[in-house]
Amino acid sequence: MRIKVINGNTFVPMTENIGEVARSVAASGTEVVHATPKAGPISIESFYDEYLAIPYILESIIEDEANFDAFVIACWGDPGIEAAREITRKPVVGIAEASMYVANMLGAKFGVVTVLDRAHNLIEHTVNKVGLMPRCASIQCTSLSVIETEELRDHACLVLEGAGRKAIAEGAEVLALGCAGMSGLDIMLEQRLGVPVVDSVAAAIKMAEALVALGKTTSKIKTFARPEPKEIRGYPAHMQSSTFPE
Amino acid sequence: MRIKVINGNTFVPMTENIGEVARSVAASGTEVVHATPKAGPISIESFYDEYLAIPYILESIIEDEANFDAFVIACWGDPGIEAAREITRKPVVGIAEASMYVANMLGAKFGVVTVLDRAHNLIEHTVNKVGLMPRCASIQCTSLSVIETEELRDHACLVLEGAGRKAIAEGAEVLALGCAGMSGLDIMLEQRLGVPVVDSVAAAIKMAEALVALGKTTSKIKTFARPEPKEIRGYPAHMQSSTFPE
Amino acid sequence: MRIKVINGNTFVPMTENIGEVARSVAASGTEVVHATPKAGPISIESFYDEYLAIPYILESIIEDEANFDAFVIACWGDPGIEAAREITRKPVVGIAEASMYVANMLGAKFGVVTVLDRAHNLIEHTVNKVGLMPRCASIQCTSLSVIETEELRDHACLVLEGAGRKAIAEGAEVLALGCAGMSGLDIMLEQRLGVPVVDSVAAAIKMAEALVALGKTTSKIKTFARPEPKEIRGYPAHMQSSTFPE
Amino acid sequence: MRIKVINGNTFVPMTENIGEVARSVAASGTEVVHATPKAGPISIESFYDEYLAIPYILESIIEDEANFDAFVIACWGDPGIEAAREITRKPVVGIAEASMYVANMLGAKFGVVTVLDRAHNLIEHTVNKVGLMPRCASIQCTSLSVIETEELRDHACLVLEGAGRKAIAEGAEVLALGCAGMSGLDIMLEQRLGVPVVDSVAAAIKMAEALVALGKTTSKIKTFARPEPKEIRGYPAHMQSSTFPE
Amino acid sequence: MRIKVINGNTFVPMTENIGEVARSVAASGTEVVHATPKAGPISIESFYDEYLAIPYILESIIEDEANFDAFVIACWGDPGIEAAREITRKPVVGIAEASMYVANMLGAKFGVVTVLDRAHNLIEHTVNKVGLMPRCASIQCTSLSVIETEELRDHACLVLEGAGRKAIAEGAEVLALGCAGMSGLDIMLEQRLGVPVVDSVAAAIKMAEALVALGKTTSKIKTFARPEPKEIRGYPAHMQSSTFPE
Amino acid sequence: MRIKVINGNTFVPMTENIGEVARSVAASGTEVVHATPKAGPISIESFYDEYLAIPYILESIIEDEANFDAFVIACWGDPGIEAAREITRKPVVGIAEASMYVANMLGAKFGVVTVLDRAHNLIEHTVNKVGLMPRCASIQCTSLSVIETEELRDHACLVLEGAGRKAIAEGAEVLALGCAGMSGLDIMLEQRLGVPVVDSVAAAIKMAEALVALGKTTSKIKTFARPEPKEIRGYPAHMQSSTFPE
Repeated sequence: MRIKVINGNTFVPMTENIGEVARSVAASGTEVVHATPKAGPISIESFYDEYLAIPYILESIIEDEANFDAFVIACWGDPGIEAAREITRKPVVGIAEASMYVANMLGAKFGVVTVLDRAHNLIEHTVNKVGLMPRCASIQCTSLSVIETEELRDHACLVLEGAGRKAIAEGAEVLALGCAGMSGLDIMLEQRLGVPVVDSVAAAIKMAEALVALGKTTSKIKTFARPEPKEIRGYPAHMQSSTFPE
Repeated sequence: MRIKVINGNTFVPMTENIGEVARSVAASGTEVVHATPKAGPISIESFYDEYLAIPYILESIIEDEANFDAFVIACWGDPGIEAAREITRKPVVGIAEASMYVANMLGAKFGVVTVLDRAHNLIEHTVNKVGLMPRCASIQCTSLSVIETEELRDHACLVLEGAGRKAIAEGAEVLALGCAGMSGLDIMLEQRLGVPVVDSVAAAIKMAEALVALGKTTSKIKTFARPEPKEIRGYPAHMQSSTFPE
Repeated sequence: MRIKVINGNTFVPMTENIGEVARSVAASGTEVVHATPKAGPISIESFYDEYLAIPYILESIIEDEANFDAFVIACWGDPGIEAAREITRKPVVGIAEASMYVANMLGAKFGVVTVLDRAHNLIEHTVNKVGLMPRCASIQCTSLSVIETEELRDHACLVLEGAGRKAIAEGAEVLALGCAGMSGLDIMLEQRLGVPVVDSVAAAIKMAEALVALGKTTSKIKTFARPEPKEIRGYPAHMQSSTFPE
Repeated sequence: MRIKVINGNTFVPMTENIGEVARSVAASGTEVVHATPKAGPISIESFYDEYLAIPYILESIIEDEANFDAFVIACWGDPGIEAAREITRKPVVGIAEASMYVANMLGAKFGVVTVLDRAHNLIEHTVNKVGLMPRCASIQCTSLSVIETEELRDHACLVLEGAGRKAIAEGAEVLALGCAGMSGLDIMLEQRLGVPVVDSVAAAIKMAEALVALGKTTSKIKTFARPEPKEIRGYPAHMQSSTFPE
Repeated sequence: MRIKVINGNTFVPMTENIGEVARSVAASGTEVVHATPKAGPISIESFYDEYLAIPYILESIIEDEANFDAFVIACWGDPGIEAAREITRKPVVGIAEASMYVANMLGAKFGVVTVLDRAHNLIEHTVNKVGLMPRCASIQCTSLSVIETEELRDHACLVLEGAGRKAIAEGAEVLALGCAGMSGLDIMLEQRLGVPVVDSVAAAIKMAEALVALGKTTSKIKTFARPEPKEIRGYPAHMQSSTFPE
Repeated sequence: MRIKVINGNTFVPMTENIGEVARSVAASGTEVVHATPKAGPISIESFYDEYLAIPYILESIIEDEANFDAFVIACWGDPGIEAAREITRKPVVGIAEASMYVANMLGAKFGVVTVLDRAHNLIEHTVNKVGLMPRCASIQCTSLSVIETEELRDHACLVLEGAGRKAIAEGAEVLALGCAGMSGLDIMLEQRLGVPVVDSVAAAIKMAEALVALGKTTSKIKTFARPEPKEIRGYPAHMQSSTFPE
């Protein structure tokens, strides 16, 4: 089984961390390839960042559609995932949804700890998109930028510990790490906080493996049907919807 | 007062219709300029279309940020509107939200009539984004493509009449036209259906005028603060967030 | 265009302030007439006050139904607005709904700052009636009576500043002034709080102008159809539903 | 124990039916007095009717506040009930809420069968006010006017049977009769439909008896505190809030 | 009228307190019999406790189905109530639902004060099951075990007073005592807190009396129909569904 | 890795089918053991059945707590799952939740097809418990008993095909098989319906494997903490909570 895990941003050290964590949990028969989009912001913290990143995340799926069994979008807004499901039948998993499903099986209510305060509504929007707001007890934003989660690991861990305590005080019994850059910090946080902490990238790899093993593919009857073939001006030939598989 | 109304897609006849309707309702002191994004799909019917359109919708705002008092995004998913509000303080209005506010003042429950069945979840997502699902009685998709709403006016009107009757049967007392391409069909549909029908482009122009007249600008304290300056690879200089106004 | 703006209570200095603010934002071709109901409480702070005020608010519309193009109900519970929409086809706008639509276009979540603590459920009920609870981050009541908002402007401003800070701490990015008596305080509060503050009366005037300019009238197919003609004992001839326009 | 049951409208035959049903279920020690408001519409079918009825429903409580142990408002919108709870500490029960509590104890989901189609949103608003929408499977309006429920009993029963079947098809397992005029039709409908049918007036009498027997009175700390004393122009002395008990 | 009130747990002093409170509010013609299940946990604080208690609560109904007019389940999770409604047509009332209906008639929002923090989600689940979450302002757990509510009355009262103040601060205007063991503490708490406090056992007795007096029985058309006859291994003959009344 | 999959009922042929399906999707290193509870109903179709089944489902976990890495409860109400999570730290997965997570990754809205009409509220309750009602488009009950799903496979398939078409018409894009007895019918239904159909038992095995591979265990800080040690009368020694692992 081959899974392509795509970093949402273009910060290469983060892609490498994502790849490392992904491979550390992949089953023996799973080959995980990590990828950085060809263009886009070096971190995703605003809606602007997210929207500029999406075309290149989608391109990363399109150009490898035939070469993998499943795709993982490694950014905690699951950016572009609805479109990703339109352009291929193969399973596409977002790290946000995956982390929420795993968290939902471990505690009565979950919390999300994440980056800058400005992302609060983006995170809330993501929980609503997945549909699990009834089980979400707390969303805790912090002072951390995405880059800092990657480059200042000790500092990030300390800040997330504080955010975790706040989430627990608001009713969370399990935490999801709300940024791909936090991958790998779960164990240390579990030890400090005494609750399960879900590494979102790791969770997504297991969800993707599950879908492939079950032989399931994306529904093509309505929302995620192949986009109608049409001219898409200014985009390269391989991104024209007429070239996509039915 | 100068308002730039931006078609979400790149189908020029639709842009012209949008401009015409917009000018027909604009106040005497309002100058409306219509615009087609430099690139993107010729119609927006899928999430894929929408996500590829957004960077160019945003670019259309960025390059004219200093030249207008408000911006209208003329596509019934209000594509990219959160990002648009990040990149300027000036009011940005989506035709979806505007049509729902107007409809909400005219009936106890509103309905939306729109294009292809595949767009149902996209439309539902838009109503939820605006927050007015508690007042939405019905979303009716049809067999119409976006292009057909523009090129086959009589046919479109007939199909929308049928969709309107279904929405009314489900409790709608007023209808919003859920596609910019339907602009100008409101009067004919009102005559046939006996309920108010809201032209979404027209509604948005009046909302934009209202915001400018009230002297209000977008909140910059959290979600819609200027995006953090950072490298955005592969995008031109004027789209780098470091160049945006605070 | 002629708009009648009706104070919900019978406190004449408040009606005059409402009229002044309304005229200050009205378009050049709009004539705004302000009115005090013939009877009713001098302020609306309880459900009791509200229910005793409503028949006279409605009478103020009935007696001028033919003379105006639109009506604004200037009290932040939008008292009697459903009935107002039954007794005329002409647009009726409530200041609560108008302020929420405007706020919704300026921030990701809005807050309401208002009068006495006892009004909390009345305000919450109003937000639910409009349908925008999913976008409301905070309702902040204060120690202010309605009369004080009018007569102790500096004190009111100070108290509202404190309430605004609490609303912002709970996630509001834009504020609606939840009482007609607060009209005119928006600019000062914006300067102190750094977020947009919506003057509800001003917002309603622009919404009413928009509806008239769009040529839209209230739906008459179901909820807001003309009340069935019947005897209404104890009410004057002009308030008998048999005398209303179809 | 003395309970005053107040018809919402001024149609005396309906008041008498209400009184008869109320007495038929009252406990042996309960004295039930039925009352028609001094003024107001002869039936309540629109918001306009409801708002004109409320001041006189409240007056009926005010003038007898000292003489009864509890009050029942016998109209299925529970008109003015929040205000009624402000003006007395004694329990006030609405027939809508009472019927929903009883129905909720008899089936997994309840339905409401009621009068004219135009009342649909008013009924929905009432269910939301009580808070039980999560358990409401269906609201079925009919061609029946309020007066017809009283004067054309056989016809009303036939129409309600049809409405009941529709509600059952939509998931209702128990029905509430959504108009005081339908009081007394429950048994016949139960026999025809095979599900429990709740007479709303009867239910309210038992709820009022329960509250009195439990010695409970309305909370006076916030929403239902006595209205602030103030001038209420045009209303008689006994309706001035300064005269109400603390 | 005969009502059987069944303690959810097997702690006999608590059953006796329940019986005492129940009889103190019962009408003169009502005979209340209190009962302890034959087996099960001595207190219900976890889901595990609750699930082990349910078969014996149900047995207590089954073995006396013919001998009573109504049944009350006296534990604030209303454990097994859906099944109880399947095995008899006679009314079954849970103390949780009853206390919420009563509270809902006394204040604009209610709060629940209850035992251990671990029960928070169980209590929340109960409020959702009844359907009244829209009216619930606060759920306050404490350090109290179920047994302590019974054996350390003064301490329990003090702890509940603190919890009540927190609930009031969060918007509750009336409180429900969220454990049968708290029965009898309502008056003292009312005096200390100044808001109505609902004794859940007392409330349930009055609701059961009401249902019997109204002559209503549980709907048998769908959810609460008699369980399909089938072999239930390991359970005694009288618990086999084939022996239940239609 | 060792997973124990526990049939909710005591119908042995169904347990064997469950075991077979479970093993067919298990990873190479996973040992799956299937088990039938020692007692309980031979099928679960009512709340009564479910509540009598739960103690024995829990016992099946308790007696093997030390011998497995994870447990799967194979009945589509996830009966007793909250209690199961209290009595062990090891992951417990319900087939209902697992099938919904998988379905949620394959379509914009999912539907559930299941057994007898009486189960509708039980199924709805389960979707709410998991938290995914916002993504559930349809619940379709049928004439099938649980036993028939197992013994009349062709008939069951035909009936489920019809139910699936109804769910699709109501907006479902992917289906979850809402009964463990339907395990193995997914492929045939996919071929007939053209949408992905999720075998709930298969989904749960993959979710359990994922949790074990991720090294995650149930949160023990609040809701799912070990039940307080106490006497549980009438239950055997190994079911006393004092014997459970911390």
